[in-house]
Amino acid sequence: MVDDHTSLLARTAKSFRENYDIDVQIEQEVIEVLPQRQSIRVVDTQTKKERIVPYSRLLLATGARPIQPFPEAAGTENLMAIKSLASGIFLKKYLESKEVNKAVIVGGGYIGVELAEALTLRGIRVTILQRGAQVMNSLDPSMAQRVAVGLERHGITLLTDTAVTGFEIQNNKARGVIANGHTIPADLFILGMGVTPNSELGKSAGLNFGPANSIEVDDRLQTNVPNIWAAGDCCQSVHLVSNKPVYIPLGTTANKQGRTAGINIGGGQAQFNGVMGTAITKFMDIECACTGLNTKQLEALGIDFVSGEIDAKTLPKYYPGTSPLTVKLFAERNTRRILGGQIVGGLGSSKRIDTLVMALHAGFTLEDILNIDLSYAPPFGNVWDPLVIAARVVLKQ
Amino acid sequence: MVDDHTSLLARTAKSFRENYDIDVQIEQEVIEVLPQRQSIRVVDTQTKKERIVPYSRLLLATGARPIQPFPEAAGTENLMAIKSLASGIFLKKYLESKEVNKAVIVGGGYIGVELAEALTLRGIRVTILQRGAQVMNSLDPSMAQRVAVGLERHGITLLTDTAVTGFEIQNNKARGVIANGHTIPADLFILGMGVTPNSELGKSAGLNFGPANSIEVDDRLQTNVPNIWAAGDCCQSVHLVSNKPVYIPLGTTANKQGRTAGINIGGGQAQFNGVMGTAITKFMDIECACTGLNTKQLEALGIDFVSGEIDAKTLPKYYPGTSPLTVKLFAERNTRRILGGQIVGGLGSSKRIDTLVMALHAGFTLEDILNIDLSYAPPFGNVWDPLVIAARVVLKQ
Repeated sequence: MVDDHTSLLARTAKSFRENYDIDVQIEQEVIEVLPQRQSIRVVDTQTKKERIVPYSRLLLATGARPIQPFPEAAGTENLMAIKSLASGIFLKKYLESKEVNKAVIVGGGYIGVELAEALTLRGIRVTILQRGAQVMNSLDPSMAQRVAVGLERHGITLLTDTAVTGFEIQNNKARGVIANGHTIPADLFILGMGVTPNSELGKSAGLNFGPANSIEVDDRLQTNVPNIWAAGDCCQSVHLVSNKPVYIPLGTTANKQGRTAGINIGGGQAQFNGVMGTAITKFMDIECACTGLNTKQLEALGIDFVSGEIDAKTLPKYYPGTSPLTVKLFAERNTRRILGGQIVGGLGSSKRIDTLVMALHAGFTLEDILNIDLSYAPPFGNVWDPLVIAARVVLKQ
Repeated sequence: MVDDHTSLLARTAKSFRENYDIDVQIEQEVIEVLPQRQSIRVVDTQTKKERIVPYSRLLLATGARPIQPFPEAAGTENLMAIKSLASGIFLKKYLESKEVNKAVIVGGGYIGVELAEALTLRGIRVTILQRGAQVMNSLDPSMAQRVAVGLERHGITLLTDTAVTGFEIQNNKARGVIANGHTIPADLFILGMGVTPNSELGKSAGLNFGPANSIEVDDRLQTNVPNIWAAGDCCQSVHLVSNKPVYIPLGTTANKQGRTAGINIGGGQAQFNGVMGTAITKFMDIECACTGLNTKQLEALGIDFVSGEIDAKTLPKYYPGTSPLTVKLFAERNTRRILGGQIVGGLGSSKRIDTLVMALHAGFTLEDILNIDLSYAPPFGNVWDPLVIAARVVLKQ
């Protein structure tokens, strides 16, 4: 969709220096944190020279890396995970220079589904292998099924309950993926199996860890070790519905955490209280979004909840361009407090999740949103908002 | 846009009877309410026969009618106001059967702007006459100016500070509109000067009245007279930011009030607390929306406030289909409570007002929304939501 990858860059080392007078040193790997000496050990990746750099405040913003459990992938160029801009550029060049007719994507989450769209738009036949019973694990099964139908409608082969155990490699090229005891051949294999935080530096520094090896931070983004802070995909957050630490690495959270940490490190006062678990994506003309907790999470937390699912339209049925829209809404049984929601639908359906995000931040009950003054005109929606209809249905339970 | 006007009908007298067992009697005009006798006087509009009909509970849902201060319009067929489906059908037939090259619309509010779009799409040259200095009075002048630029870009002639005093009529046809002492000729004249509640029946019943002759009701939609209720465009509402009674007749409010009144009349318990003043419309590729209070209203209420206006985009700048988006946000100076907001922008910009509507219902301050977990992915928006950027700008003040 985007011709020039440089348009995706927000800032460069040069622009940091010129616009903000910030000294960004690249190709410098930090290999150890020495909190007693308030210093870090740094290796120049070109010269391999090592030096000790002192700090008064240290921010770990080391991000995350794709989960890649297959050592046989090393040295192959048609079996890869996509995380950085560099890996995206590599894949694009590969597709432009090699004949790729069929691709297998391992993982049916956001990355897998978004890559399936990109590859399908290039005319490549795509198979998605998913270990569990459904794509998009953040959605309830009935909602994920609507996404699955959309994937298949656009020619994606979706194999669920399919666990990948390895790859067949010949001459540094992956020839097939081994799953459920069978080998599935393809020209290209992409891993979308989630990420793991780059938190190893924190071990030597004596930091505490949260879920999934993420770095534990407080609401000011400070770690348990004085003068060491962490933000972004390397650290934990708090789920504001369950009030439990979670590891949900997303770009929007990373930005907010970075800003909060920066203000505090600079001597200001800022708080980042946590996340709602909001996420959104699209595949062709199918959008999906979620916020709060889903059935699986609510059950794991032992919360007594009710839920309801309703079918609606983005616009009045008589209005050109209307598309279907399904809302699933969750509320605590006794208090009727809204606990989460999901939307799957056509174009223009899923950004509406933000209304529900606000309701969750407000701690609203189902009753609180029944008569809410949401905007209405036929080019924008129906006179009864789908969220309000869903709230009514859940309230009946 | 819609070929068959029957697709615009939600329900008919017949469907009420067949689906809900509700006895809808049409062409029956109620001419007086007799609260002492718990009865109404009804005239059959065909036979002119009068009868007395008793009630145990009475709901006044009489709606509103367009403001039409020009007696000379009577008997003309090319000078009209648009309110009902019938008037829309009449206008459509008129456009199909007569040669209409130029139309003048009196009033630059929602109705005026939406009619300007419909007529322009039929190839008719449109002039909008607006009494005040700006179109869209619910917006601040700087925001309304963006709408005005859009109107003119699409060929609309917009004359502000132009008060209409009458029409030149010849042979039952309006030939010109008289404004600021000049006559502007056209083939068609449409009035979009707002509406007035059909509340006259309430006078005989001894009801109290609120703003603009609307019927006063409480949060259960009950009037001051026992067993008489009112809902919809004939009655008042409460503005939930100012906590003052207002008359803002809109379809979405009418639906909510009707439902609330119905539940209460049926013996249940429901409340309608009020409105936020939310409104939304579009003209071609220009959308606008508002909620809460604007500068004029805040000043009239004597509220000490700060505001800020920011330019953003609906999508990342590299993403195809991104369009401009301006947000104006208002907050109380001392408490930092959000008091209102406005959005003007391209396609996909203005339905985002709903996020702000929720924030207003929650009573959120600017700080409350700085780190809110709104959804983010490039096909849906930027990593920093325009509302959050606006909140930061206002906070600095």
